[in-house]
Amino acid sequence: MQTKNIGLRNIEVADTKISAIDGINGKLIYRGYDVLDLVKKSTFEETACLLLNDDLPTQDVLSLFSEKLVTTREIPEGLEKMLRSMPKAANPMDVLQSTVSMMAVHDTEKVDDRITNYSRAINLISKIPIIVACWDRIRNGQEIIQPSKKLNHAGNFLYMLTGKEPDTETARIFDICLILHAEHSFNASTFAAREVASTRANMYAAVSAAVGALSGELHGGANFQVMKMLLEIGSEEKVEPWIKNRLEKSQKIMGMGHAVYKTFDPRAEVLRELSRRLAEKTGQPWYAITKRVEEVTEEEMKKIKSSDIFPNVDLYSASVYYMLGIPMDLNTPIFAISRVSGWTSHIIEEKFAEAAPKPMLYRPKAVYVGKYCGPSGCEYVSIEKRLTQI
Amino acid sequence: MQTKNIGLRNIEVADTKISAIDGINGKLIYRGYDVLDLVKKSTFEETACLLLNDDLPTQDVLSLFSEKLVTTREIPEGLEKMLRSMPKAANPMDVLQSTVSMMAVHDTEKVDDRITNYSRAINLISKIPIIVACWDRIRNGQEIIQPSKKLNHAGNFLYMLTGKEPDTETARIFDICLILHAEHSFNASTFAAREVASTRANMYAAVSAAVGALSGELHGGANFQVMKMLLEIGSEEKVEPWIKNRLEKSQKIMGMGHAVYKTFDPRAEVLRELSRRLAEKTGQPWYAITKRVEEVTEEEMKKIKSSDIFPNVDLYSASVYYMLGIPMDLNTPIFAISRVSGWTSHIIEEKFAEAAPKPMLYRPKAVYVGKYCGPSGCEYVSIEKRLTQI
Repeated sequence: MQTKNIGLRNIEVADTKISAIDGINGKLIYRGYDVLDLVKKSTFEETACLLLNDDLPTQDVLSLFSEKLVTTREIPEGLEKMLRSMPKAANPMDVLQSTVSMMAVHDTEKVDDRITNYSRAINLISKIPIIVACWDRIRNGQEIIQPSKKLNHAGNFLYMLTGKEPDTETARIFDICLILHAEHSFNASTFAAREVASTRANMYAAVSAAVGALSGELHGGANFQVMKMLLEIGSEEKVEPWIKNRLEKSQKIMGMGHAVYKTFDPRAEVLRELSRRLAEKTGQPWYAITKRVEEVTEEEMKKIKSSDIFPNVDLYSASVYYMLGIPMDLNTPIFAISRVSGWTSHIIEEKFAEAAPKPMLYRPKAVYVGKYCGPSGCEYVSIEKRLTQI
Repeated sequence: MQTKNIGLRNIEVADTKISAIDGINGKLIYRGYDVLDLVKKSTFEETACLLLNDDLPTQDVLSLFSEKLVTTREIPEGLEKMLRSMPKAANPMDVLQSTVSMMAVHDTEKVDDRITNYSRAINLISKIPIIVACWDRIRNGQEIIQPSKKLNHAGNFLYMLTGKEPDTETARIFDICLILHAEHSFNASTFAAREVASTRANMYAAVSAAVGALSGELHGGANFQVMKMLLEIGSEEKVEPWIKNRLEKSQKIMGMGHAVYKTFDPRAEVLRELSRRLAEKTGQPWYAITKRVEEVTEEEMKKIKSSDIFPNVDLYSASVYYMLGIPMDLNTPIFAISRVSGWTSHIIEEKFAEAAPKPMLYRPKAVYVGKYCGPSGCEYVSIEKRLTQI
């Protein structure tokens, strides 16, 4: 007997009010609002506040939230020392996971109610970009940059990473990236966060698990792989032979296709436009190459399989981050900078949902397919006798 | 529409060869062998080796495994410094989670194949007890104890915790506890480990997630709660009124009842005998009180609900650990010392299973029950207009 639910695909595990994905029509909805509307009209701060609450905030709520995000914006005592003690070649996601768990050690609040969880969410949203930026400076032997209290969330990260205040357009492009990546229902990292939270573990423990899940190459590592592909291809005219050669060998094209969207990923559409704008601004070829990857893959897939394939969120975010001057191996940590707003919203929903059916400790079943010598188990053979069995 | 699969109860999520639970007949099987046989004839070292491989090891395999467990038994560079930098009141599970993630930062091996995962499993099994023991010494202002190379796994932990070499009986009792807690199929922490591993994250990231899940009071925290109850009751004659009073208020009795076992948890049977032996040895009252808790709860539940209720693994392990002189808030970390052998076995199975159906990235579905204003989302209202809505 084998399980039918590998990867839990199509198994409904919980109710959520946080987001909805309409994979047929290419819609992504945060708390009722279309993400395409949010990237035009909202900011990351407001979007995070929307996700953590149940509607768009009033001016008072948003001001308080943003202010707390800024006042929490500091390099925690001991963090710099801890980061300096790490080997410079360490994977930034490993660094981030251990630092997030460490935040629990330094949080002395014993109460674990909705209010403390909301505060912890703000603490995590505020500190994760700081950890990522400080780590990049430290591993490169650069001075760390003290946070700015006047820049917005997106701008402050770019400032702490590069030491230069970004211009308005650049900061807004990164702000839009943060809005787009903030939430995406029950992907592997969000599910890990909810699973850990279902035991009533604290928020840091759950976010640390999510960072761990995001670090896997099948989840958060994809846009790093896309950029590697673009660099390998190197120029527009080399795209066609490169893609054809790969498809002939039945290899996947990174950044193309999605498990949930059967049409254009709405986020990819926005990122394509951002990539175009950045290419214009910087004179770099990565937008043109990416566009060609998209076109050739689509044409070839039509020929080979008579099927449609669409770019996913990773295809254009790779070139956007690259042209923003972000080191490639920070692509996944940057995903975390944004997604922590979704993770923490889900953790609060998992722990404090008011409507039935309330979430419950996750305890799935496994199908035992191992040795079976009857209900009382196999005979324990003493170790001397085992030797002769080889 | 609401999901039917809350907590994934009874949903089969994967095949496993690692363990089987027969809740009807009260059997727990590790890789084909009855745990009741293993506690009589095996050791924790051999059991961990059995779990990580697919059968009882030959002498050569076991010797190599045990030797590596001992040579890896060292206080890692930087660990002591890191532990000393933490606030002494920190929760030992938070300390453990961040330290486990930190092990990834210090592991420079880039390959992630079956062999490196096996080595990492040994590294984790060897180091987790060392982290727990060192942390307890440091938070109490005591000198840390260098690991012994001649004691077995159980004995070395007690030695590093207390500074005294345990006598043979005490070491064997703890060894049996480690065997009993080593593996228990897809509980919340093991499932978290597999979920994170399904993204191809590294083993430390997955074990760190499992530690996070175990830290929750609905999962690993239960035997701490049992000991709190025993201390509150305080004497044998106070058990009956205490239990009756609690049941009258429809409150749960900690340590009684299990989601999977509908009969005697086989582990509870062994732990009851260990508790009896330790009470005889130490002259402490905790076995007698626990026994009385079991009896009274059973009698009362028969009267109230005409139903049977049985002790679970936590009921007697609480008094066992207490009489072994282990601080109560280390009960959950001690669970991790043992269960890491199960977690790492599951991570290897998740990543390297050879038979179909192979595991797949977990990506369940959620049911959206939030705001819905039509397929294009609710209208984004500008912030000035929101103010007037209150």
